Amino acid sequence: MNAEIISVGTELLLGKVVNTDTTIVANALAGIGVNLLYATTIGDNPDRLEAATKLALSRSDLVITTGGLGPTQDDLTKQIVAKAAGVELEVNQKCYEKLLTQFTNAMADNQINQVILPVGCHVLLNDNGIAPGCVFESDNGKMVMMFPGPPRELEPMLTNYAVPYLAKDEIAVISSHDIHVFGKGEAQVATQFDHLISGTNPTVAPYANEGEMYLRVTAKADSKEVADDMCKPLLREILEGLGDYVYGVDVKTMEESLVKKLKEKNMTIATAESCTGGEIAKRITDISGSSAVFKTGIVAYSNETKMNILGLDEEILKNHGAVSAECAKAMAEGLFKIANSDLAISTTGIAGPTGGTDEKPVGLIYMALCDGKDTFVTVRNPRGRQKERIWHRYVAGTQAMDMARRYLDGINVVEVNEK
Amino acid sequence: MNAEIISVGTELLLGKVVNTDTTIVANALAGIGVNLLYATTIGDNPDRLEAATKLALSRSDLVITTGGLGPTQDDLTKQIVAKAAGVELEVNQKCYEKLLTQFTNAMADNQINQVILPVGCHVLLNDNGIAPGCVFESDNGKMVMMFPGPPRELEPMLTNYAVPYLAKDEIAVISSHDIHVFGKGEAQVATQFDHLISGTNPTVAPYANEGEMYLRVTAKADSKEVADDMCKPLLREILEGLGDYVYGVDVKTMEESLVKKLKEKNMTIATAESCTGGEIAKRITDISGSSAVFKTGIVAYSNETKMNILGLDEEILKNHGAVSAECAKAMAEGLFKIANSDLAISTTGIAGPTGGTDEKPVGLIYMALCDGKDTFVTVRNPRGRQKERIWHRYVAGTQAMDMARRYLDGINVVEVNEK
Repeated sequence: MNAEIISVGTELLLGKVVNTDTTIVANALAGIGVNLLYATTIGDNPDRLEAATKLALSRSDLVITTGGLGPTQDDLTKQIVAKAAGVELEVNQKCYEKLLTQFTNAMADNQINQVILPVGCHVLLNDNGIAPGCVFESDNGKMVMMFPGPPRELEPMLTNYAVPYLAKDEIAVISSHDIHVFGKGEAQVATQFDHLISGTNPTVAPYANEGEMYLRVTAKADSKEVADDMCKPLLREILEGLGDYVYGVDVKTMEESLVKKLKEKNMTIATAESCTGGEIAKRITDISGSSAVFKTGIVAYSNETKMNILGLDEEILKNHGAVSAECAKAMAEGLFKIANSDLAISTTGIAGPTGGTDEKPVGLIYMALCDGKDTFVTVRNPRGRQKERIWHRYVAGTQAMDMARRYLDGINVVEVNEK
Repeated sequence: MNAEIISVGTELLLGKVVNTDTTIVANALAGIGVNLLYATTIGDNPDRLEAATKLALSRSDLVITTGGLGPTQDDLTKQIVAKAAGVELEVNQKCYEKLLTQFTNAMADNQINQVILPVGCHVLLNDNGIAPGCVFESDNGKMVMMFPGPPRELEPMLTNYAVPYLAKDEIAVISSHDIHVFGKGEAQVATQFDHLISGTNPTVAPYANEGEMYLRVTAKADSKEVADDMCKPLLREILEGLGDYVYGVDVKTMEESLVKKLKEKNMTIATAESCTGGEIAKRITDISGSSAVFKTGIVAYSNETKMNILGLDEEILKNHGAVSAECAKAMAEGLFKIANSDLAISTTGIAGPTGGTDEKPVGLIYMALCDGKDTFVTVRNPRGRQKERIWHRYVAGTQAMDMARRYLDGINVVEVNEK
């Protein structure tokens, strides 16, 4: 099956918004073996959208649109695409009833536009917004799918409703596993498993991702069981080869892996953050059910707060400064005393873009973990990386959580870097 | 001048790489008043690339390609685009000489492919890589520009060489302003300014964005000054019409606006977060320079932490529960006592997806602001919104910050919702 995507939105052509929708859809299509041949972006312009849709319907089996399903007059995707595909629109009764439950007060008149859908379409529910998506057949027998533009609405709709809908027509079944790695780079891991990466079924592909990387092992077969079995020897080889650097398999993030491991051991963790400023607490509590393992976080962004709330000795700040191994250690130990948690982790450093010196450059970040008996300290050295504030904070957050993950795994808490 | 972009690369259609090149080019074109009408992504496929190029040359004045200029056999952009444009290729002598200086050791034979360029083209130097870009004229008199794919090569080439080249032919200049709104939805605002949204120059466009919205006013004229002047009356009308709901103009986020307003008043803020779990502290400290206005954040995710660190009276939790106006109030007041800040804000509620009841559903979140004299409390009622945990946390974070923004603006701290 050959597919193409049409993204609709003037904001995309003004360079105000990055078109991540195309990437999300492309990735999902690749996962079920649909060939994506074109991706086109069009502004909120009826004539150009109609021409692009007609061209797409003439050359592709599946045409997917993203964006332009909202209530306002520049949301014109459904009208134009339906016209190009030769189908009528109507108020979808089921969606209209759902819409009424979403507004307890008076609803603006134009909201009803969002539930006007092609006659006879299959509705794709929007669990994260108002505008539903849909699948229908064009008058020349092609499949058309329409998705809302916001990625957080599109992505679950795609994963939960559209992919299963598409996959039922596919014969091949995919088994796919992600091995998440922290502390080794994409290039290094790719070189290590070069012999696997050149394979075709199963495939092994390395992906870089915000200071970490993952390897995706994918097999295609007639049944899920066979595909799973095809993955197994490769997974074994990769896990053995990467050892302590693997923080999780088939998890989404370090924080998800950490919360899971804490739950398994029935343990709790607390955070004392200076330069990461709440990043770690936020990421841990992003995970549903984290209240079982996380009770207390302190953002100690000033020296005063480090002393007043975490009980830091002023001498430490005087002698070593806030950006020091000694300060990270004292923060974790001070936190341990007040937080009533099994583990206490801390961060202190220079997130940038200002505040760096030759001696303490932007990106230099100390982290510590205290279990009440021992305190482990490590440091992120920027090593010439000229990255953004957001990146330094994110990756330091990941590394501090990785210390706890390593503690729970019963291995070296401080990564022994091979690089 | 009407333009279109063709991005070349199978990796883009497999969803492995986000197409930021298009965003970078689109943004630069908007800045010099070039209308970008289409952006198309094609895989490394000669036939489809040739067809797309011919189509682009038939309908646009300027065709820009990104990617596929490298040395390997799947780098075929120059060959195919030159063929479609009816021009010959040759080894560009100037680029070849530069290439020789870039390799001190033996050079792989295929490197020379990178300096084979259209005859008579204008070279765009690559200061951050090997492959140069170029500008040339097609046989039907259209302008063609080719850029390398890696954003860190493309962006400086575009800014330093291509934009000045294009700008000398351009007369129109764009002025664009974003009015950011919290507390009124996109549909409601769109209805209110329907008469402006139908205009063509200036244009007014509404955009929804994670629980908030913004209106973009854009004017095009011969000079920046004239374009700015054209925007002014619309900006005035919109700002008057939206009043207290506008949290900032030409800012990126609520937190950016809040940090700016705190700095202007030389005031500080502290956070006590239950359900948002560090979200607010994280977002405030995402802003560079926030250390001037933010010193202390407490994530009080358990009742114990609310009592031990924020000094909450156990009676409040017993009588009203942690998800209550009383708890939010006591958290803000308790925080005010320990944080040594001018303002203290708090959140407590049910982020979901579990933990909701009929009486206290998922999404019910209380927020408070204490200035040491008064404490203001408000509540987010889910009103049937079936949203994700991440969304509830994000929007509650925005709303709590909006209380502080309103305080600093000297208006009602608690939004008087018109909906």
